[in-house]
Formats: sequence, C-alpha cells, structure tokens
Amino acid sequence: MLQRVISLTVRDVRFQTSLEQHGSDAMHTDPDYSAAYVVIDTDCGLKGFGLTFTVGKGTEIVVRAVDALAGLVVGKSLQEIVSDFRGFYRLLTSDGQMRWLGPEKGVIHLATAAVLNAVWDLWARAEVFITCADCFFRLPEDQMLKEGYPAYTTSCAWLGYPDQQLKQLCTDALEGGWTKFKVKVGADLEDDIRRCRLIRQMIGPNNTLMIDANQRWDVDEAISWVSRLSEFKPLWIEEPTSPDDILGHAAISKALAPLGIGVATGEQCANRVMFKQFLQASALQFVQIDSCRLGSVNENLAVLLMAHKFKVPVCPHAGGVGLCELVQHLILFDYICVSASLSDRMCEYVDHLHEHFVNPVVIQDAHYMPPKDPGYSCEMLESSVQRHQYPEGEAWKAAHEQMTKA
Amino acid sequence: MLQRVISLTVRDVRFQTSLEQHGSDAMHTDPDYSAAYVVIDTDCGLKGFGLTFTVGKGTEIVVRAVDALAGLVVGKSLQEIVSDFRGFYRLLTSDGQMRWLGPEKGVIHLATAAVLNAVWDLWARAEVFITCADCFFRLPEDQMLKEGYPAYTTSCAWLGYPDQQLKQLCTDALEGGWTKFKVKVGADLEDDIRRCRLIRQMIGPNNTLMIDANQRWDVDEAISWVSRLSEFKPLWIEEPTSPDDILGHAAISKALAPLGIGVATGEQCANRVMFKQFLQASALQFVQIDSCRLGSVNENLAVLLMAHKFKVPVCPHAGGVGLCELVQHLILFDYICVSASLSDRMCEYVDHLHEHFVNPVVIQDAHYMPPKDPGYSCEMLESSVQRHQYPEGEAWKAAHEQMTKA
Repeated sequence: MLQRVISLTVRDVRFQTSLEQHGSDAMHTDPDYSAAYVVIDTDCGLKGFGLTFTVGKGTEIVVRAVDALAGLVVGKSLQEIVSDFRGFYRLLTSDGQMRWLGPEKGVIHLATAAVLNAVWDLWARAEVFITCADCFFRLPEDQMLKEGYPAYTTSCAWLGYPDQQLKQLCTDALEGGWTKFKVKVGADLEDDIRRCRLIRQMIGPNNTLMIDANQRWDVDEAISWVSRLSEFKPLWIEEPTSPDDILGHAAISKALAPLGIGVATGEQCANRVMFKQFLQASALQFVQIDSCRLGSVNENLAVLLMAHKFKVPVCPHAGGVGLCELVQHLILFDYICVSASLSDRMCEYVDHLHEHFVNPVVIQDAHYMPPKDPGYSCEMLESSVQRHQYPEGEAWKAAHEQMTKA
Repeated sequence: MLQRVISLTVRDVRFQTSLEQHGSDAMHTDPDYSAAYVVIDTDCGLKGFGLTFTVGKGTEIVVRAVDALAGLVVGKSLQEIVSDFRGFYRLLTSDGQMRWLGPEKGVIHLATAAVLNAVWDLWARAEVFITCADCFFRLPEDQMLKEGYPAYTTSCAWLGYPDQQLKQLCTDALEGGWTKFKVKVGADLEDDIRRCRLIRQMIGPNNTLMIDANQRWDVDEAISWVSRLSEFKPLWIEEPTSPDDILGHAAISKALAPLGIGVATGEQCANRVMFKQFLQASALQFVQIDSCRLGSVNENLAVLLMAHKFKVPVCPHAGGVGLCELVQHLILFDYICVSASLSDRMCEYVDHLHEHFVNPVVIQDAHYMPPKDPGYSCEMLESSVQRHQYPEGEAWKAAHEQMTKA
C-alpha cells in the first residue's frame, strides 16, 4: 500500500454561536463559528482530518475552493507529497490559473489551509507522531509535559455580554486559575472604560489584561482611543486597525510604546509576506499566528522562524472551531524547537465547541497540556458534523423550523 | 417604478486563450481568460451588466461568492443604493460574517467588484451617462474627444510567443501607430536579453519599452535581473516581486532609481489600504489600478485621489476580458477630474476578445477613444456568453470532445 490519496471530501459545518453572542466583537457582531471540514481517504484505510475556520455565511465559498484544490491532491501518495513538501505547497498556491484568485490570501488560502491541515494530520497518523510538535524531536519529558503551555482566556468578555455575565465569568475564571484575560473593545469608548475598569478591579493589578478592537479604528482613532484606556494597563492592543495596514500599525506601535502598550495582530494577516513586513517595520510587538489563515504548518513555521529572528514573541490566535486544537501543536513546536522561552508568551484559549472533537484540547490550571494522540487533533465527531452540516443537518433544520414558526 | 433590483444572476464564462499562449507570462503560463459575468434585472426592465476578470480554473469559486453577495443587492432600489453608496459599499465588504473571508481581498473582493461594476452600469444607464467619466462633468468637447487617451500595447510580446511572432506583431504595431510596448520577462535571463534587444532594435531609441515580470522574483533577484536589462532602457519594471511585499518594492525602487527605471504594480494589489502604503513607502512610481481587483469605481476613485496627492502617475492595468472596456472610464475620469495631465501616463491595451462585447473599446492611432454609449461598457453579447459558458457552452463541449478523441 502506497498510502495514496483516493478521495478528499469537504463539508460545511456551522454552529449557531450567534444566538448567545459568543465570539461577538466590534466588527463581527453575530458570528456563527463554522468550518470547512476536510477528510482525506487513502488506499490503506488511513484518514487525515483538516479544517479551516470561518464565521458562518460564505463557508460554502471556501468549500467550493477546497473542491477546486482537491484535484491537486487526489492520486498522490503521502510519500510523494512529503518528500517534496515545498513543491507540493507551491503546487497548491501557485497554480497558473488559480493563483489569480489570491495569490495566497482570502478564500483560496483558507482552503489551502484546510487541505494542508488534513495532509499534516494524515502524515502524523501515518508516522504515529504528534503533528509538528515533535516532527523533529520526540516530546521531551520536560516542563511542557508537567506544566503545559501558558494560556489566556477570551471567554469572559465578548462584546455582546452584559456586565453581570462578565463578572460571573471572570469570577469563575479566577477560581479556575486563570491569570490573563482579554477584553473586546472598540464599539463605544464609555462602555470600554466601564468594562475595562470592571475587569481590572476584579483581576487586580498583578494579573494580565489585553484588549482587542478587531480592526475597528483608523490609525489616529486607535492611538487616541487606546490612550484613554491606558490607565487599565493593557499589555497589548490587538487588531487596532485594518489587518493590511502595516505602516499604520507601525505608527500605532510607536505612539503607544511610551504608554507601555504593545500592538498584537495576525489572525487576519494574509500570509508570510505580510508578517515579514510587520516584523521589518516594527509594526507589532506580539505575533499572533493562525493555524487556518496561513498555509498550515508549512507557512506557520516560516513565521515562527522570522519572529524568532526579529526577537518578537509569538502568542497564537485561537478559539473559533478547532483553532485551539490545531494551534497547540504550533506553539509547542515554537517552545521546544525555536524560542525556548515563555517570556511574554501565551496562547489564546476560548472554551466553546471543544465537545465536538475526538481529541479536544486539555487545559489544566490555565495551561495547554501537550496532546497525546497521534495527528493534528482536529478530527470532529462524525455525529457533530452530521448534526451541524449546513443547511441539511438536524441542528439547522430545527433552527429553520423555529424561524419559520416565529 | 422604483428601479428596484429583482434579480442578480452570475455566469462562469471562459475563453480558451491558453491554446495560443495569449496572455502567457512568467507566472501564468496557460491562462484561459475568463469572467464571472453578472446581470442585474430591475422592475422597470432596465438591466445592469458587470464582471470580474479571472484566468480560468476557480472562476466557479468567484461565481459562488457573487451568489453569496446577491442577497445584499436584490430587493434594493437604485435610489436607495446610490443615495448612500458608501453605506452600500460597506454592506457588501463588511458583513459581520463574510468579512472573515477577506476582508476586502481575493475571491470575495473580486466578487464585490463584479457586483458593483454591474450596479455602476445600471446607474449609468438609468441616468443615461457614461459611467464615471462624467458622473460629475459632462464629457467636454476637448482633447479626449479628438485624440483620445494614450495607450500602450502588451499584445506583441507575451512570454510564450516565438521570436518570429514577436517580430511580426511588432512590425504590425509600429505600422498601426503604436509607440509604447510591453515585454514579458522573468523566466530566463538570456531569453529576456534576446527578446528585449530584438524589440528595442525594432522600435528604435525614441519609442517606449516597459518590462513585466509578473511577480517572478525575490527582492534581490529582481534588482540584479533588471540591472542586467537596463541597457534596453525600460521605463518601468512591472510586478518585480510578490504583490504583497510593499517594503520589498520600496527596496527595488530605491535600487533601480539610479538606472532610470521605475517600479509599476497594482493588478494584484488587494485593496486601497495596500495602495496607500505603496504610496507612503515610495514603493512604486506608476500606479496600475485594476477595474476588477478593487471594489469597482468606488475604491478606484480613492486610489486615483491618493495617487494624485502623492504625485504618482496612474497607468491602468487592462487586457484580459473586459478590462479595457471598464478601465477606459476610470482613466478618462482621472484625466478630466483629477490629474489633468498626460505626463508619464498611458493605459494598457491588449487586442483580444473585444469582439464579445456589445460596445467594444475603440482604439484610434494607439489611443482609447471615449465611449459614447451609456453605461460601463461591459455588456457581453448573449451569444458569446452562452457559447463560452463553462462547462456547458458549445465552445467547451467541443473542446472536451476533442480532448476525449485525442
């Protein structure tokens, strides 16, 4: 058996997170956390599972893009792929006709991520290793196995949550050992001041606070708004403006440095070429890689190495559907093989939707514990996929019926 | 009648240009020039026609993206749209769920362009004006009506053409009054030297030569390669490296300035935020707007105004399918309402596929003559659309049969 790919299927899986305002921020007011979910079948029975994250509408476009890439994968053997992984990456991203649709950005790159995530998962299962974290090293019996990788929580303070809910979630999180908290800001300054004050009072002066505007502002507006919030001592302002505005981020970084506030961005940074410039221009102080926006492990490794060269810490974006499951591998790799440091480093954590995964992340005392099952950890429960498949799954049929009644 | 949009349909139309290497360059070796072609119907019988350009495979992904946007247009009256066009633009580009797929880049932005191009066409027909060129002014009886807007030709020297064909096409073009010629480069240095020498010899020292690498190089490679071609006195090197690498283009611009060679780019510049930085960083000396990559007239006007502020000439990208038809309106607007200058300015022209349009561009003595029919000039002949619709049109059925036989 050659471990030859005999099929690549993709499904549109959506969760109605918007109903309870989970994930709501200044730009994405009603996200339905979703995924284009890929399964690769091989002639030896081994499977690979991958996904890319989306926030609802338009997932069908990404599904169609995965279909368009499938022809480049089906028929190849795993050996063929991994023996020239650079060539395979370029085959997907540099097709003479399809690269016009990017290149390497937006829908077509999200689709590339879904496909490559599944290929990495397949490879990891074939070799019985834990994807990437130990593709070069076996996981050492070290600090990571004992204590895990430090995490911060975004689950307490989505923009759409009322203050009472914020308080309750923050109390629970503090009891659960969390010490680092992110608050969504950017819609209304007075609201932001009230919410930041509330959270800072609850967590005290020694815990860490981060704020996240999800691209809501222009450059000048970002500087003045964040200056008004500086009394709450945020470690960083995340996505202050357009994710494409490298020079704008550089201006914001420069203006906020005297206040001790860094700039973090990356979850919508289109590709490694953009990250390169963010680093060259001193436009960010925290690199937020994303396991589904960039071209899987391949492109994320390039960004980890660049960040190391520029001495900028990596604090991955996670949450959504499956992002925590995927990105834990990348950040462990960063610690074990690249940075060897935890200084100013932590990985985002959001506690929704993990129940749909076969091997969900394990959090202990606000740390990601290293995954123990072979693969890239994003295989979903088949029952969840079927129930939430859009629009034909039972969950969506029920939602549709309820809407029709109302 | 409210001129209310009652339907928006989109079709996948492809032409087999790859058969004869039309459009071939160092990165796109076998393009099939294609379009996602949009027709808007209104309750008063008036129609709007728009498109976005693609190069073959993956056009079905853009079609699906247009379908996803259609729901934001159908049901609206033209009055509603144009009385708050900024709001309408943001409705399309900032949907809380769909913006994750860009924002404002790649597939979803190409789809936005197709939809908005059709809306502008509809508006122009409703008001019986020529889109944009005179949305503020009536076209003056001036130089443009008499002489037209200067054009250059890319049709002589696609990368896949043999030298003999180059020579013949160049001879014909010189006889036709052309004085500005673009040559594709970047695949092989010795070939480039031979081809540039050939063209320069044929056109003489006083005509203009431009070269275009279609993103083939790294930054350092671009500088050394173009330096080797400097003896042929090109006015610009187009797309020397990744279209996302603003700081890379700045480095190339700086290195080539002493040789008298400028940097031109834009056909794959994702959006106005990227153009802003190219201008801020002195990373280009010629702005190549694209009528289908950016968000239609709306976003292109922003770029024209920024270019004017930075005193950088605009030389639009055209060719493909319908790009010449569309962009002639934008460059006339630039001349009449913004720059009022022809210095270092010209518009690309490629002489393929115009026969499929109801009102094809008119070229006289290597100048674009102002369009005289109301609208945005990209209505296609229904017979052409049906014949080239992919995969069910007769042209593709015939191609498929031929391939099956062979």
